[in-house]
Amino acid sequence: MGKEITSRAQDYSQWYNDLIIKGSLADYSAVRGCMVIKPYGFALWENMRDVLDRKFKDTGHQNAYFPLFVPKSLFEAEEKNAEGFAKECAVVTHYRLIADPDQKGKLKVDPDAKLEEELIVRPTSEAIIWNTYKGWIQSYRDLPILVNQWANVVRWEMRTRLFLRTAEFLWQEGHTAHATAEEAVTETKLMLDVYADFVENWMALPVIKGVKSPNERFAGAEDTYCIEALMQDGKALQAGTSHFLGQNFAKAFDVKFSDRENKLDYVWATSWGVSTRLIGALVMAHSDDDGLILPPKIAPTQVVIVPIYKGEEQKALIDEKVTAILRELKALGISVKYDDSDNARPGWKFAEYEMKGVPVRMAVGARDLENQVVEIARRDKKEKTTVPIEGVALYIKELLADIQQYMYDKAKAFRDEHITPADSWDEFMNILDNKGGFVAAHWDGTAETEDKIKELSKATIRCIPLNNPLETGTCILTGKPSTQRVLFARAY
Amino acid sequence: MGKEITSRAQDYSQWYNDLIIKGSLADYSAVRGCMVIKPYGFALWENMRDVLDRKFKDTGHQNAYFPLFVPKSLFEAEEKNAEGFAKECAVVTHYRLIADPDQKGKLKVDPDAKLEEELIVRPTSEAIIWNTYKGWIQSYRDLPILVNQWANVVRWEMRTRLFLRTAEFLWQEGHTAHATAEEAVTETKLMLDVYADFVENWMALPVIKGVKSPNERFAGAEDTYCIEALMQDGKALQAGTSHFLGQNFAKAFDVKFSDRENKLDYVWATSWGVSTRLIGALVMAHSDDDGLILPPKIAPTQVVIVPIYKGEEQKALIDEKVTAILRELKALGISVKYDDSDNARPGWKFAEYEMKGVPVRMAVGARDLENQVVEIARRDKKEKTTVPIEGVALYIKELLADIQQYMYDKAKAFRDEHITPADSWDEFMNILDNKGGFVAAHWDGTAETEDKIKELSKATIRCIPLNNPLETGTCILTGKPSTQRVLFARAY
Repeated sequence: MGKEITSRAQDYSQWYNDLIIKGSLADYSAVRGCMVIKPYGFALWENMRDVLDRKFKDTGHQNAYFPLFVPKSLFEAEEKNAEGFAKECAVVTHYRLIADPDQKGKLKVDPDAKLEEELIVRPTSEAIIWNTYKGWIQSYRDLPILVNQWANVVRWEMRTRLFLRTAEFLWQEGHTAHATAEEAVTETKLMLDVYADFVENWMALPVIKGVKSPNERFAGAEDTYCIEALMQDGKALQAGTSHFLGQNFAKAFDVKFSDRENKLDYVWATSWGVSTRLIGALVMAHSDDDGLILPPKIAPTQVVIVPIYKGEEQKALIDEKVTAILRELKALGISVKYDDSDNARPGWKFAEYEMKGVPVRMAVGARDLENQVVEIARRDKKEKTTVPIEGVALYIKELLADIQQYMYDKAKAFRDEHITPADSWDEFMNILDNKGGFVAAHWDGTAETEDKIKELSKATIRCIPLNNPLETGTCILTGKPSTQRVLFARAY
Repeated sequence: MGKEITSRAQDYSQWYNDLIIKGSLADYSAVRGCMVIKPYGFALWENMRDVLDRKFKDTGHQNAYFPLFVPKSLFEAEEKNAEGFAKECAVVTHYRLIADPDQKGKLKVDPDAKLEEELIVRPTSEAIIWNTYKGWIQSYRDLPILVNQWANVVRWEMRTRLFLRTAEFLWQEGHTAHATAEEAVTETKLMLDVYADFVENWMALPVIKGVKSPNERFAGAEDTYCIEALMQDGKALQAGTSHFLGQNFAKAFDVKFSDRENKLDYVWATSWGVSTRLIGALVMAHSDDDGLILPPKIAPTQVVIVPIYKGEEQKALIDEKVTAILRELKALGISVKYDDSDNARPGWKFAEYEMKGVPVRMAVGARDLENQVVEIARRDKKEKTTVPIEGVALYIKELLADIQQYMYDKAKAFRDEHITPADSWDEFMNILDNKGGFVAAHWDGTAETEDKIKELSKATIRCIPLNNPLETGTCILTGKPSTQRVLFARAY
């Protein structure tokens, strides 16, 4: 059928790249580590973005836009944050090009146009935003500030992968300011819930909500909450984070407010973000060796209709019937594409839409019309069935809901089967090496042990789940006492 | 009332800045020439963006996303384009910061992390996009490509102004690829029409559609079409451009396609864009000395309701009535805010919403309720009227439409009064210096004369209107023969 995909068994990593490229989600670019998001991939991102944006607004947030560049002096103000991102910063040093006297038609950087202060291309926007909030906040009446930004950010990663880790990526970053620590923590948890709701109920991907160990915290945060998902190869993927920043940025940028008693205090902060990385998670969690499998609730095209005919007369009959079906589907809010292009055979189209993960395919042939039926194929289970044309729109509406649920249930069953307790180092390593997934194990709570476990096993603490049951035990590495199991995994 | 605005008569330029800052649209930032778009300003931009995005999709375009950075070698490939933008390029030269050994807690650019090839922060994306299209286009079957991108771009302007000219700005840039010149020209004109429709019918701002003189063309274009609007101070503002790029970028990036006869040819291109600059145009064209005046069709809040009461009992009665009105307004798709905050008096709120340009204000007092009426004020004409509560939602719906039309008619009357023919140099200068607006004058058609007129008068040819009537005459500067009048103006 033209486009060959490497199988998961053969090379999981290549399978993933094949899906992204051949499924038309993205393309490599001429810029190291940066990708082009193609129209099909961007339509998927738009659907995800629109759902999230609605949820942000429904929880009282407003969008705004802050500069792409962060002057170095602001960037370095919050020291832990600066230290955390320093080694992956793209830096603008000049503001002009001039003709290169040595090479006709070429340009060179104008040495006379050096900036007095270098500008960092934002890897995250806490610094520029808190420097701005300083001018917006005087009193408790100015709080809370509940702002979100949809933006591009740049982190100069050495090893990049399409969607999962690119030098430039698209994301949203919420940055809120509060009068009390309690209110900020509530906000942090609220946004974690918003993310979990989105990933589970729209992306059909079950997540574990938890809090990061100190080693894995966002640079500059007091606490990092996260949602962790599991991929088909048994590796974990952090799907979203929500940070309680304490007063760290308020102190770094001297942002104080007077409370109801007219006492001055530093403002409390949160930040939270998800990115185009989610598309990588979506692809890795659900797809198969024939291509993408997209959840109906965010698929750019939910239904594709392919006509099967010989000659113009049959085509005209099919067109007429399909026109009515299209109208019914659209009336139900279902996004549908009628692919009657004559430059490919039906079999090629079937493979193409399978590759692209369109949830439902309808084939309409001349014989089918005589029998008043159409053939419906669902992408997730690869099952075909013949359905009466009468009532087919409602049938599809229910089928889409069923596919959404099936995808979630399947991913959840896989995830649940892959949370394995380990009570010794050997058991721990055995699970990581042979079964994969999350390992629930005791840890003595120190950063040193966490580092050592990572070094020895390449596994990290993904999170300490919220409402984690307390249970006495001993650390799998040091044997020291522990009060609860935490979730380890190898991760993306 | 707290926030003083400079009047237009006193200082038009300061009036504009006051509106932007005090109307909460944007704020200055710590980055030279870059601004912060505040939630109210961003909500306005979102409304504009959503309308435009719908129009782009309805005309067959899809969104995609291309890298922020353009490697220097790609940037310089199309020489005219590169030359046009070279002097305002922000350039990334390094990818890492390290601790500064001389200053504790500070960072410096790591000299060992110099990029082999500098990266230009996109001032426009033709280069990176056409380099990508090369991989997407082989045959006529791959054409047309109809892609748009919403993005931030950076042009290192020396003199900046909020919204009108900022170093970083938000925009959309359409980049299309076609098999024939005719099809590309048709696309160029179609998108000009989309822009004109949007600016006239949503922003309530009349525009003149035309084509630029060669001197004013986009760098790398064969023809630049534009829409020109007139501001209240008599200066013109280019509100959008649509470029026919010929085969210039296809040649620079070697993008060829085989046609139906299997002959190879270079691909034809267009690009077109509008930006956050439109917000500057909106503000300058419609507002008055009391603040912003926003057209209802894109205003973030169309109606604000302010209660006027003494004591909780009155408040409760008003709340009850307003709840019903809110429901009716929302059912009609009207965006409404009920400002019952107790931290400001009604008079202060009135001034605040006048400043922010909310089209309709409703005041609801206890006495009004007894009489079953409310007070409605329209922002554009500053007229107040008392209206029965029964049917008030429908009344407001019609009022909003009336305001939209009135704003357009007023701006159009002003614009039409400010297109003045001039038949001599003295007349030309007299109009520019004393009346302002567009001057319709003969020009001999040469770049030299255009330059000379610009030098002497600070006026440029804004456009040669589409369907411009032919008329013999003599150039106002050189006296040489001319076949048509063109529109000159001083411009933003």
